[in-house]
Amino acid sequence: MDLIDIRELYRNKDQYIGKEVQVGGWVRSIRDSKTFGFIVVNDGTYFETLQIVYHDALENFAAISKLNVGSAIIVKGKLVATPEAKQPFEIQAKEVQIEGTSTSDYPLQKKRHTLEYLRTMTHLRPRTNTFQAVFRVRSLIAYAIHQYFQERDFVYVHTPIITGSDCEGAGEMFRVTTLDLNNLPLTKEGKVDTTQDFFGKETNLTVSGQLNGETYAMAFKNIYTFGPTFRAENSNTTRHAAEFWMIEPEIAFADLKDDMALAEGMLKYIINYVLEHAPEEMKFFNQFIDQGLLERLQVVANSEFGHVTYTEAIEILEKNNDNFDYKVSWGCDLQTEHERYLTEQVFKKPVFVTDYPKEIKAFYMKLNEDNKTVAAMDLLVPGIGEIIGGSQREDDYDKLLKRMEELGLKKEDYDFYLDLRKYGSARHAGFGLGFERCVMYLTGMGNIRDVVPFPRTVNNCDL
Amino acid sequence: MDLIDIRELYRNKDQYIGKEVQVGGWVRSIRDSKTFGFIVVNDGTYFETLQIVYHDALENFAAISKLNVGSAIIVKGKLVATPEAKQPFEIQAKEVQIEGTSTSDYPLQKKRHTLEYLRTMTHLRPRTNTFQAVFRVRSLIAYAIHQYFQERDFVYVHTPIITGSDCEGAGEMFRVTTLDLNNLPLTKEGKVDTTQDFFGKETNLTVSGQLNGETYAMAFKNIYTFGPTFRAENSNTTRHAAEFWMIEPEIAFADLKDDMALAEGMLKYIINYVLEHAPEEMKFFNQFIDQGLLERLQVVANSEFGHVTYTEAIEILEKNNDNFDYKVSWGCDLQTEHERYLTEQVFKKPVFVTDYPKEIKAFYMKLNEDNKTVAAMDLLVPGIGEIIGGSQREDDYDKLLKRMEELGLKKEDYDFYLDLRKYGSARHAGFGLGFERCVMYLTGMGNIRDVVPFPRTVNNCDL
Repeated sequence: MDLIDIRELYRNKDQYIGKEVQVGGWVRSIRDSKTFGFIVVNDGTYFETLQIVYHDALENFAAISKLNVGSAIIVKGKLVATPEAKQPFEIQAKEVQIEGTSTSDYPLQKKRHTLEYLRTMTHLRPRTNTFQAVFRVRSLIAYAIHQYFQERDFVYVHTPIITGSDCEGAGEMFRVTTLDLNNLPLTKEGKVDTTQDFFGKETNLTVSGQLNGETYAMAFKNIYTFGPTFRAENSNTTRHAAEFWMIEPEIAFADLKDDMALAEGMLKYIINYVLEHAPEEMKFFNQFIDQGLLERLQVVANSEFGHVTYTEAIEILEKNNDNFDYKVSWGCDLQTEHERYLTEQVFKKPVFVTDYPKEIKAFYMKLNEDNKTVAAMDLLVPGIGEIIGGSQREDDYDKLLKRMEELGLKKEDYDFYLDLRKYGSARHAGFGLGFERCVMYLTGMGNIRDVVPFPRTVNNCDL
Repeated sequence: MDLIDIRELYRNKDQYIGKEVQVGGWVRSIRDSKTFGFIVVNDGTYFETLQIVYHDALENFAAISKLNVGSAIIVKGKLVATPEAKQPFEIQAKEVQIEGTSTSDYPLQKKRHTLEYLRTMTHLRPRTNTFQAVFRVRSLIAYAIHQYFQERDFVYVHTPIITGSDCEGAGEMFRVTTLDLNNLPLTKEGKVDTTQDFFGKETNLTVSGQLNGETYAMAFKNIYTFGPTFRAENSNTTRHAAEFWMIEPEIAFADLKDDMALAEGMLKYIINYVLEHAPEEMKFFNQFIDQGLLERLQVVANSEFGHVTYTEAIEILEKNNDNFDYKVSWGCDLQTEHERYLTEQVFKKPVFVTDYPKEIKAFYMKLNEDNKTVAAMDLLVPGIGEIIGGSQREDDYDKLLKRMEELGLKKEDYDFYLDLRKYGSARHAGFGLGFERCVMYLTGMGNIRDVVPFPRTVNNCDL
């Protein structure tokens, strides 16, 4: 007899009630009296648990009653409706096989643990309610993103993880090498001889797949990446990890307006997908992690996002300068306090800020006609601030080259990128969504370490 | 007026024929006479091209006629059915905007290029027919895999890329470091002081997410990974890359039989998905890359896979030893020639070989009752040999520890892994599918460098 997922029992309960079923799962709690007992089981397929009733008619009644929390069991019995109880049904056990016992020192006893404590056991924490919810929702968000782009015929491109270039100098990088650090080959000048390394040169972990992605957008029109990226920044905050996943779509024959429409559509799609596919988990977050989460997400899913230029935004913010830690003026970068003020107090919904000063944005962004600003956009959302950053790309060969020269970038490092402006250049745009930030946003979790299965931060690389 | 994807014109042509449409794309070829001309355009959304007819009534007729291959244009005009022609319709242009010109030295002129030559320009090759087909199919396979597992409520887990452990010692690893190689901090003993590295210890790029994945299977029951993995092997073959993607599902309360059913279902699902969603591309491969491809895939999709134990397979192979370069005997690993003989000559369909000698398999595989073999499986397919490898995992604490000791593995490196056998151990199994090998198999492409957007191999890390 095959095992049935607990999710399937809940999904199609009418089909199973009154029938004999068999489930396997882990004991969440167990209590017994002399002649019968109750076991609450979770099998990981569904957020809700399943109650098992067992009686002393079972030959292993004593052994069952001695089980510790965390034990794995396989239960066969009739699924019975329980209209009077909190749960819709329970199993009256005809057989309880002990698949694997647990010990009394099992770290996840019934009492609540802090998230900090659970971080010390990344291999066990997915068995708790909070992390069951987080990591199922993480999985659903990932799939929703794929579905959104694939339904629109975007091509998923695996941009490289190991790279010989440093993209836009976007951040500190991790070096990748096969050289023996205790026995490095040296050049005549006494420097490390990188020509003897695996790739014959210095290589690093990627900080962004965007430039590679652009080469594919100029072939497939619409593409997206979804892969890990890295920052070797020595920052110990609740929002930075050394290893994180990023989504970077890129669309050709498209401008900043198209780019914003794509971003808005994606965010709404993800929210609706998760609300539909993980209602129990989302209710849990709303109740225990972040009250107001559901309402905030509903607002985002149902509002038409606002639009404001950076210059207009600065005018608005300057009027409120007295209340900011960092005073704003034209030319400065926006801090989270400014972003949240705009989206939460002024617009009261998500808002795109566009057309930033070129000095505070990357070299590849398209210069506007004012020669001062670039066709960039940041999407700000209530409760968090910036969640997406993007831009139309400079598609004019000469302007791009000039900007690179101004910034001291070496032409030979970007020949491939310039080629895209030489052979059939077309207006194009894209954006980046930090996946973990998106998961935090949708779950209300406050620390990036709690939305990554095995987080990598300074001095922390467990498992 | 918005641009319409060429795919959309083909998909819903009845809706567009006779109407004015606007498309953007790149010139594949152009020919003109004095008063009119034809442009063949591809916009990357569809394998087929679109023909544009333009006349000298257009004010920029001369400029259009001078366009080089590779130029980007935006065309507005009526979509007209062409029942007499090869293509179903064409656009009679009312307007041809030149979005971006190309130069006469554009490397992708109409004539055919070798795959080797195209490898020297990874940023342009996706614009050719072959690579349009390869990388769209790659994207579709990736999505099919996600869909297969998500439809079955598997949780997608991002296992870490940077790791402090070396898993099963599965291969040569890349070191990840932020230390300055030209100025390494040293310990008193004169060795590199890894405590000063970013993570406070030596770290490497992952070779497999399996062990991490198992920790999540013991919480969610059914999980899968899909991410990049790395091998720093100095091998220059058509089938090895230093960076490649891998899919590793893991299922709890499941044995080797369940594992094989999952693998068989997945492979059939992928094939059917690609045949349905990329018929033009698959026809192209069948015609120009690998004749017989479609028939071979149809056989796989429609056959019930065979099953044979390693011991039985050896008996079969020994009878044919005269024809093998490597002679087989019980205890030896199977070579590709043996695998292909089994699946192509003996079974004439995909076949699972199971229960290998423990000595040639990894430490974590479940020991069979004979104490000699383990519950492992390799899936062999016609035309390629092994495509999937998996096993049931040892779920008995003592047996696992004993095997680790026999192999000299340090217990403290695997405490988390042993915990899974201590706290509610459950039978579980999983497998690994090399994504690039899967793409090669479905496209007929013979070199891994031609199915990875930006391949990384020894001495090669372009872009």
